[in-house]
Amino acid sequence: MKLARCLLGILTIVILNPMSVCRVSNADEGMWLFNDLPLEYLQKKYGFKPDEKWAEHLMKSSVRFNVGGSASFISSTGLVLTNHHVGSDTLYKLSTPERNIMEAGFLAKTHAEELKAPDLELNQLVNIRDVTGEVKGAVTDGMKPEQAVAARRAVIAKIEKSALDETGLRSDVVTLYGGGRYHLYQYKKYTDVRLVWAPETAIAFFGGDADNFEYPRYCLDACIFRVYENDKPAKIEHFLKWSENGPSADELTFVSGNPGRTSRIFTMDALRFQRDVRMPFMLNGLRRQEILLQQYGLRSTENARRARDDLFGVQNSRKARLGMLAGLQDPTVLAEKQKAEDVLLAAVNADPKLKPLATAWDSIRETTKKRGELQGKGVSLTSSLFSIAMSIAMMAEEDQKPSGERLPEYSEAGRESLLQQLYSEAPIYEDLDQVLLADSIARTLESRGFDDAVCQQILAGKSPADRASELITGTKLKEVANRRKLVEGGLKAVEASDDPLIQLARTVIPEIRKFRTITDQLDEQDKQAYARIAEAKFATQGTSTYPDATFSLRLAFGPVAGYEQNGEAIPAWTKVGGTFEHEEKHKGQADYKLPESWKKAKDSLNPNTPFNFVSTADIIGGNSGSPVVNSKLELVGLIFDGNIQSLTGDFIYSDKQARSVSVHSSAIREALQVVYGAENIVKELGK
Amino acid sequence: MKLARCLLGILTIVILNPMSVCRVSNADEGMWLFNDLPLEYLQKKYGFKPDEKWAEHLMKSSVRFNVGGSASFISSTGLVLTNHHVGSDTLYKLSTPERNIMEAGFLAKTHAEELKAPDLELNQLVNIRDVTGEVKGAVTDGMKPEQAVAARRAVIAKIEKSALDETGLRSDVVTLYGGGRYHLYQYKKYTDVRLVWAPETAIAFFGGDADNFEYPRYCLDACIFRVYENDKPAKIEHFLKWSENGPSADELTFVSGNPGRTSRIFTMDALRFQRDVRMPFMLNGLRRQEILLQQYGLRSTENARRARDDLFGVQNSRKARLGMLAGLQDPTVLAEKQKAEDVLLAAVNADPKLKPLATAWDSIRETTKKRGELQGKGVSLTSSLFSIAMSIAMMAEEDQKPSGERLPEYSEAGRESLLQQLYSEAPIYEDLDQVLLADSIARTLESRGFDDAVCQQILAGKSPADRASELITGTKLKEVANRRKLVEGGLKAVEASDDPLIQLARTVIPEIRKFRTITDQLDEQDKQAYARIAEAKFATQGTSTYPDATFSLRLAFGPVAGYEQNGEAIPAWTKVGGTFEHEEKHKGQADYKLPESWKKAKDSLNPNTPFNFVSTADIIGGNSGSPVVNSKLELVGLIFDGNIQSLTGDFIYSDKQARSVSVHSSAIREALQVVYGAENIVKELGK
Repeated sequence: MKLARCLLGILTIVILNPMSVCRVSNADEGMWLFNDLPLEYLQKKYGFKPDEKWAEHLMKSSVRFNVGGSASFISSTGLVLTNHHVGSDTLYKLSTPERNIMEAGFLAKTHAEELKAPDLELNQLVNIRDVTGEVKGAVTDGMKPEQAVAARRAVIAKIEKSALDETGLRSDVVTLYGGGRYHLYQYKKYTDVRLVWAPETAIAFFGGDADNFEYPRYCLDACIFRVYENDKPAKIEHFLKWSENGPSADELTFVSGNPGRTSRIFTMDALRFQRDVRMPFMLNGLRRQEILLQQYGLRSTENARRARDDLFGVQNSRKARLGMLAGLQDPTVLAEKQKAEDVLLAAVNADPKLKPLATAWDSIRETTKKRGELQGKGVSLTSSLFSIAMSIAMMAEEDQKPSGERLPEYSEAGRESLLQQLYSEAPIYEDLDQVLLADSIARTLESRGFDDAVCQQILAGKSPADRASELITGTKLKEVANRRKLVEGGLKAVEASDDPLIQLARTVIPEIRKFRTITDQLDEQDKQAYARIAEAKFATQGTSTYPDATFSLRLAFGPVAGYEQNGEAIPAWTKVGGTFEHEEKHKGQADYKLPESWKKAKDSLNPNTPFNFVSTADIIGGNSGSPVVNSKLELVGLIFDGNIQSLTGDFIYSDKQARSVSVHSSAIREALQVVYGAENIVKELGK
Repeated sequence: MKLARCLLGILTIVILNPMSVCRVSNADEGMWLFNDLPLEYLQKKYGFKPDEKWAEHLMKSSVRFNVGGSASFISSTGLVLTNHHVGSDTLYKLSTPERNIMEAGFLAKTHAEELKAPDLELNQLVNIRDVTGEVKGAVTDGMKPEQAVAARRAVIAKIEKSALDETGLRSDVVTLYGGGRYHLYQYKKYTDVRLVWAPETAIAFFGGDADNFEYPRYCLDACIFRVYENDKPAKIEHFLKWSENGPSADELTFVSGNPGRTSRIFTMDALRFQRDVRMPFMLNGLRRQEILLQQYGLRSTENARRARDDLFGVQNSRKARLGMLAGLQDPTVLAEKQKAEDVLLAAVNADPKLKPLATAWDSIRETTKKRGELQGKGVSLTSSLFSIAMSIAMMAEEDQKPSGERLPEYSEAGRESLLQQLYSEAPIYEDLDQVLLADSIARTLESRGFDDAVCQQILAGKSPADRASELITGTKLKEVANRRKLVEGGLKAVEASDDPLIQLARTVIPEIRKFRTITDQLDEQDKQAYARIAEAKFATQGTSTYPDATFSLRLAFGPVAGYEQNGEAIPAWTKVGGTFEHEEKHKGQADYKLPESWKKAKDSLNPNTPFNFVSTADIIGGNSGSPVVNSKLELVGLIFDGNIQSLTGDFIYSDKQARSVSVHSSAIREALQVVYGAENIVKELGK
């Protein structure tokens, strides 16, 4: 599973993130805050109570990949373990037609051979501070929506900026419990990140799109980076020891990672909106993108290489969202949500003190209606080069204002990360970019209406294909130096620029701002509504709850456990030997072809080594790459997927069949030794 | 190219077929009626004037594949030549996991080895009669829409039935020139059709989806059937001789086939409706189907085999429609249409006698608006078994009325063809059918709204997947004997049936009827409007016009001619030798892998034999399999595609870059001899 990557600088899809309170109704449900762990529950159910040191060690051993994923430190020498599909953004950028790392894999035998990622930023969470009072204090009753948006934006920018100035740490205010709490998360940043090892995609993603979100699985979805400081391997204090044998059956395990987004607090109106409007719309867009990338890739093997990473991402999203929609379209699932909402509303209405909170549901009904009317009406063009143009043009305008009044992504605190993306030397393939741009112009014509004024400005009298060709051929933003010149020249340089993409960006910015203002206000309205619902939940159900996922560090847990499917017992483990049988069974089909390295190593591998396993831990997209540890904090696995039954986890948790899927620690070690001859890495593991 | 096949018994997509008059504005434009050929134009431009005998011979040598395609008789012994992709419906039905004809190809060395198609019906046009007076007389001024629909339906059913009774021939009244003319087409039917030869899909569709609608091409998109009568090869009087060398450069060629549908008469409002509403909607549906079939196919090689034929059809439609939409989204293309409309309307408004006709444009504006509101609101479930249930249940109800009052597909004249489909022993794969049904239930929930009463009846409290599983597992319609029992038992048997699919069909029929009544009336309103527009055109532009395509026999023509693309000269021909270079260039990609038979034959093949060629003949989907002949009526080629520039041909013809693509007659003969060792067939060709 994989968090869909947002295109730099332009919000392709506005993600509503209510970040709200969730009631624990099932066994091992929960994505818990590291500063508010369910200690009593763990003690009571599992007889294990993590102490502060335990939590701090795990927190600081955990790593966030800014492109959307999780990871962990696995040595004092800076080694970082994550999924192949989390690293793939970098593997792709480091690949060339001659050296296709995505396909062939990679191993650095020495530090000198390690490959520097062009634009990777890793975050290590080192501090959490509650800033609820400060943030809440800034928004007062009676403020108009636009005032509330501005006030909240200003106070958050101020807190982030002063925390950054004070500590030099990346400082993000995270909205939790739907606005019930605001925490300041401070990260140590690593921006010199180098690739150490990656297996072939053929084994990392064995079974391909067909096996994605399925179980049993046989995937070595792992790769290893190393963080550097001052051009030397960073010295890491908190890292995870490698387990000798991995987890035993039913053993309690913990997952420390960054789940991206859940919607468990959603009201029934919000869920119905997802089911009837948002999900079908997004799926249409994803399928469109998928076919487009497939078609582009079919033209040549080099095209296929260029499109592969985007295609994987799109296919992954499509399958995930299809699973979510299937859950929402299951009357029995929504009946359960309806019942819970009825109970809560009844309790609210029965208590005169709580009764005013009931307006929250009306408020959300109102915003979903407005969101429905806005669906697809934004201006959203898919192109890396256009996204760069948008960022540059927008930044130039935003920089005219004080940091606290800017759109958050252009505030002082985030500038460094933004520029790292803008100045990335990662390859951009013009032909692919042109195909994507042409199609997204066509899509915009369809969704906004051909005769719409903005559409006509975008087209400039040409067909989408001709216009895209003209724009991409004409732009000089392919050269990083030209981007830098425009950024440094500021508004004046941007206004004087004759670059066609900069000019197009300036043409559409007014419309994008208009749309953004509306959606920001809807988001603010929802924030206030969900904060009231959170309050109602706290009041009626107590406080042993966790907030919806926010792509910040959380702890999940659960035992290793198989499940039943169509009357069949699905065992918790697969074994390395089964991999070869799985290939045999799917003879002749492309994604079931093991790489040569595995075929050669077949006789040397122990067929009984556990390969993948499942547990009941509560995870979601963004958790990919999360370390799985036992209570002794030894690394026993590496989260890489959820099964198909887990896809409803976006809005409801169940431990009946839903499972998180991990690569077993022993399989990674054995593959490194036996298949890849990476003794150098094995020696460093957990040391 | 391929006509999308309609699912039996249920209109998945309502195709508006205005069947209207087209003005010839370009060189070799036109899909001409065999009883109204452009003799003067041909004489003037090419110095060749076909006589009646010439036309009759070509007409009677032409064959229509009822599944959507064209073909020709190529021997006195009943051999029929068509495209592999037209025959593929049958190749697919004849295939099993053990004998995959689609993949491996097929050759019968003797009559006894020929394989009988389970449900193929071929039509040979033998007679055309003008019945305009009769049909037009039935609809009188002042009739309400529902009365007009009924009156027209009744008179057409009567004409067809009495023609059938009189001659025993299949008799279809075809609406031409948007209702300006009605012709009775009478066909000799062949229903004992046997497969003689088919090459491997790998060479028939070499380059796959990527090369589809592209040029240069290297495809042996051909296969050969034989028609039987009384269990013996039919004796055929009119068939095409095989040309010795095929066409020379710039030689005038003729295409005789059944173009499915064009929309050249469309008003600007109708075109905008296609651009903004209909095409985007259909493309979303096609992409959805494409991904679904791909996903199903990825699970195993057997699944891939089962899904392949549908997948090809969907991909073909998707690419064709995408090309059409691209044309509609090109401002320069529509500007040309707008100009023509302006000129016509000005002429109409300037003439007091014609002025009343101008209301036609308002009428179409009105119907497109209504069609937009209806978009996606019908009940449309995709499942072969459900389609059978629908046909049976609907037929039982319709049979209560006199033939002339029934929905046309249930009239007496069409009964035999309908039953042939219903009683087909062609395999239906339950697992695939279930996947398609589940997805189409989900799609219906999305388009009609989850809480819609009909949706809730369809779901019956279950998720789409569970409901589809229950329905497909529970139905007994897999057995042809059970279908027959229900058909023979009539309404009583249907009403008493506890088959879950029959019950579901009966549940949704009222809604389907409601929707059908509305769309039938819109079609009638359009028919009357386009008839007025046709009248305006006849009056202002003369009568040397042809009607829009109607999946009935037409003659197109044009010289063999290359074209220019991106400054590059694209030659008219490709050669057999280039095929191997094309494979080399796309090394490693699946659809560019030549079959073993071709690799073995490489050294024996003449690399200079022409393989595919292009001409300016005006064709469209449905023309696939059309014979290309020279003025001596010798077979010189086999239409199988149009290039990407031809895709706007649905609504505008151009001979600048748009080309029809054919397999060269010499390539077919050489492949039969050298690659397939089919001397037995070669001896029969043209004899």
